[in-house]
Amino acid sequence: FKGCSFGVGGGGKPRRVVLVKAEAVGINPDIRKSEEKVVDSVVVTELSKPVTAYCRCWRSGTFPLCDGSHVKHNKATGDNVGPLLLKK
Amino acid sequence: FKGCSFGVGGGGKPRRVVLVKAEAVGINPDIRKSEEKVVDSVVVTELSKPVTAYCRCWRSGTFPLCDGSHVKHNKATGDNVGPLLLKK
Ligand code: FES
Ligand code: FES
Repeated sequence: FKGCSFGVGGGGKPRRVVLVKAEAVGINPDIRKSEEKVVDSVVVTELSKPVTAYCRCWRSGTFPLCDGSHVKHNKATGDNVGPLLLKK
Repeated sequence: FKGCSFGVGGGGKPRRVVLVKAEAVGINPDIRKSEEKVVDSVVVTELSKPVTAYCRCWRSGTFPLCDGSHVKHNKATGDNVGPLLLKK
């Protein structure tokens, strides 16, 4: 953890500002954390629907499938992620 | 940004500790940030190789394909993400 603090401000009372150096963080908070690496396979001949959406946001309740949770994630964080669509 | 600081420490000099409340952050730092939502499509009949790996870590230099960058991401962050493998 690295940080530093100093006083800033125009007129009036100086305001304390704390700068924090962000460290790289993971993108998967919850899914299959007991696995060293989460890899999934799709045998494409077995796809049943014309289009199947696969999750890339690591927030889906039906992972590896997309359940639309990327919408909430994008709204909460300002992110722009979405699924991979497999088309027959 | 919410934070607070206070003094702690056993004997000797108190040490300043700053607690920072983490906010939800995005998982895609760089890829196609001009797009509101990054969605890709694969027409599975056009896959050429027996196995094709698609990126789910948002760190690939060949996105939407996986280029192995998840390994570096996992090592740097303690994460456990990996690609989606499409098999013909
Ligand atoms: S729920 Fe994760 S990409 Fe849609
Ligand atoms: S490079 Fe992103 S999953 Fe492999």
